[in-house]
Amino acid sequence: MSTTALLHAAPDAIAAAARRVMARCDELARVSSESGSIERVYLSPEHARVNRLAAEWMRELGMQTWQDAAGNQVGRIGDPSAPALLMGSHLDTVIDAGRYDGIAGVLIALEVVRLLRVPAGDGWTVPLPFALEVIAFSDEEGTRFGKALLGSSAVAGTWDASWWALTDADGVSLRQAFLEFGLDPGRVGEAARRPDELVGYLEAHIEQGPELDRAGEPLAVVSSIASARRFQLVVEGEARHAGGTPYDMRHDALLGASEAALAVERICAAEHHIVGTVGRFEAFPGAVNVIPGEVRFSLDLRGEFDDSRDHVWDALSIELDRIMGRRGLRWRSREVHSAPAVFCAPLLQEVVGAGIRATLPARADAPPVIFSRAGHDGMALGAIAEVGMLFLRNPDGISHHPDEAVSAGDVAHGIRALAEAVLLRGAEPA
Amino acid sequence: MSTTALLHAAPDAIAAAARRVMARCDELARVSSESGSIERVYLSPEHARVNRLAAEWMRELGMQTWQDAAGNQVGRIGDPSAPALLMGSHLDTVIDAGRYDGIAGVLIALEVVRLLRVPAGDGWTVPLPFALEVIAFSDEEGTRFGKALLGSSAVAGTWDASWWALTDADGVSLRQAFLEFGLDPGRVGEAARRPDELVGYLEAHIEQGPELDRAGEPLAVVSSIASARRFQLVVEGEARHAGGTPYDMRHDALLGASEAALAVERICAAEHHIVGTVGRFEAFPGAVNVIPGEVRFSLDLRGEFDDSRDHVWDALSIELDRIMGRRGLRWRSREVHSAPAVFCAPLLQEVVGAGIRATLPARADAPPVIFSRAGHDGMALGAIAEVGMLFLRNPDGISHHPDEAVSAGDVAHGIRALAEAVLLRGAEPA
Repeated sequence: MSTTALLHAAPDAIAAAARRVMARCDELARVSSESGSIERVYLSPEHARVNRLAAEWMRELGMQTWQDAAGNQVGRIGDPSAPALLMGSHLDTVIDAGRYDGIAGVLIALEVVRLLRVPAGDGWTVPLPFALEVIAFSDEEGTRFGKALLGSSAVAGTWDASWWALTDADGVSLRQAFLEFGLDPGRVGEAARRPDELVGYLEAHIEQGPELDRAGEPLAVVSSIASARRFQLVVEGEARHAGGTPYDMRHDALLGASEAALAVERICAAEHHIVGTVGRFEAFPGAVNVIPGEVRFSLDLRGEFDDSRDHVWDALSIELDRIMGRRGLRWRSREVHSAPAVFCAPLLQEVVGAGIRATLPARADAPPVIFSRAGHDGMALGAIAEVGMLFLRNPDGISHHPDEAVSAGDVAHGIRALAEAVLLRGAEPA
Repeated sequence: MSTTALLHAAPDAIAAAARRVMARCDELARVSSESGSIERVYLSPEHARVNRLAAEWMRELGMQTWQDAAGNQVGRIGDPSAPALLMGSHLDTVIDAGRYDGIAGVLIALEVVRLLRVPAGDGWTVPLPFALEVIAFSDEEGTRFGKALLGSSAVAGTWDASWWALTDADGVSLRQAFLEFGLDPGRVGEAARRPDELVGYLEAHIEQGPELDRAGEPLAVVSSIASARRFQLVVEGEARHAGGTPYDMRHDALLGASEAALAVERICAAEHHIVGTVGRFEAFPGAVNVIPGEVRFSLDLRGEFDDSRDHVWDALSIELDRIMGRRGLRWRSREVHSAPAVFCAPLLQEVVGAGIRATLPARADAPPVIFSRAGHDGMALGAIAEVGMLFLRNPDGISHHPDEAVSAGDVAHGIRALAEAVLLRGAEPA
């Protein structure tokens, strides 16, 4: 595989493309519901604003654009009747977010379109046997409704009617938010794409972990996206007066939940390639002089393989029975998200790897291949298309935090590698 | 000591008084900022409403009434130039409160006035060498501003100017709340009473603990009110992506704070008569897929003696250094409340004990004498007056909870015992 003549000829164009990606990440970072930090959630006014910006940038490249029935922003260029190679990522964020998670992947995809669509005579410089689409998913993080991958699930046709009743922190249901955003809940099925419309799905993303930074590598092929399960847990005890209640009469939900959080760490750390995180944790009634009678907390489990992830949950359930039994507490859980590990398609792993080698020819070895502990839109897309992913180095692995970073140099490498991968995919049989 | 002729003659009056206390506790429970639960905080519309009700009930007994400069509701009967024996408790509540904590003490004091003020000829049935005052303190719990005993501190003349800047959960300062309630912050000093105006302070209160219920005793003399310290603690780590960050790169503030909460329990349980409670506990940013970068929590320490309480804090500080050091976290604390143990006056302990014996003559032994693990308005009043307290049995010790209870029969005993104590105090030299 090797089709790099066009891209070798365009180093200045790639450097300019990387600068544009960095500047647009800054521009999108200013679209936030919070002053002084970045927060952009599904079906918010900020979501509408970044969709409009993305659509402008797509049209600037000659793409046809539309916002789909789930609020995803899409652009397309090429033969209207041909299947499309879909590229993209998401524009929504967590609370107090960084500016690159998801966003950089959408902007890199646009730069790949810019590089490849250069007109030459009556067609493109490099003819491709498929159209190109770029998608900016509307909800990957699940920040607002606690359910991740809403945007990509709509595209994958796996939207679940039970989700309409999900509510945000203000009690607004997903259905109501759809209506307020100007979307028709009854038409969400129209966002679904058919497998025969898609050649595959390619996504560039910052690593959100430290592996590439530790290895001194700018880029990696992603082998799979971790399997994940999310739970909401409740521990119930008895709210009592903090002064008057001796220890032998306490059923302190906070102490039980604290032991639970530490048990998550202990049990996960003993397994290979599993992390568990308690991210939300609220004690009620939450008064200085009242023993907490209830604690609600979240649990996010990720692992390279489904079976070890499930083993952790089983072991934890036994441990929670023991902890809560000893303290006279009750506990219950509700699973709110479950996704099996998604394995990237061998062909797309191959073209991404060849793209990295073409971009970094001085490297002697094969490019690094790592699995993604973080979830990505590809987890949903895997239901209808082959998935390939390219990771960019993320200094110190800091993500979901204002200090999240990626260098312009690595973005330039990423743009080139992804463009090469698209060209290489085009040279393969459908 | 024994002056029980009047009260022996009035068993029906006492039973009726107890029924009235129970009915008024129910009536006040309906004055709440939350539908379906009881919450009544300082300087709220509910505070104003219960003050108006208390004032009505005071006037019905022929008392002169006023709301003082800190929002405490006061009633007085007797010689205007004489010093007063002050009785009372508080009408504010915690979040999701019971209906007796504080409230029962105010209403019992009113019934004592009703029993003793019975006119006989041109004076009272039983002449007393002091006036009687009943006070309904406006803030004992500290629910709204995180600082307890605001109402009684104003009466004790120990109001601190730094408190004006305290804010509630909505960011409203104490100063602003004073103005909105119609009080003048510049005049709070006028609520302060001089020691020579007061003969003493007597308070009836539910135990808020299980000792009397366990011992099968309806009433107890209180020997002292526990010493207390309250702290706000912050643990700082690093907010990072929940999926992408391996354990060796995590600085999870929630896990550090969980260990801290368990250390409070472990260290306190190893000491005699100390309890420590983490009642508030908030994790930030509080997203399902972000490792908590910060946790803020409260610590409430209570002990019979100041030195063992301080020893616990010192030991805990060393333990927190160790925990946070091991996890790469930082911690800091701010002391927001400190009160030394307050010992009830020997004379008032004696009259309360004699009042209990007169009320429960079938008991062979001396009445139980217990220390209060819970804080009370007497902690502040101790600065200007001798303090005496009577505890009423609290089934299962449940307090600061909707299930908080006291029986009408025990309330009748409590009314009688407190009235006897007042008569006995009147028979002693000033």
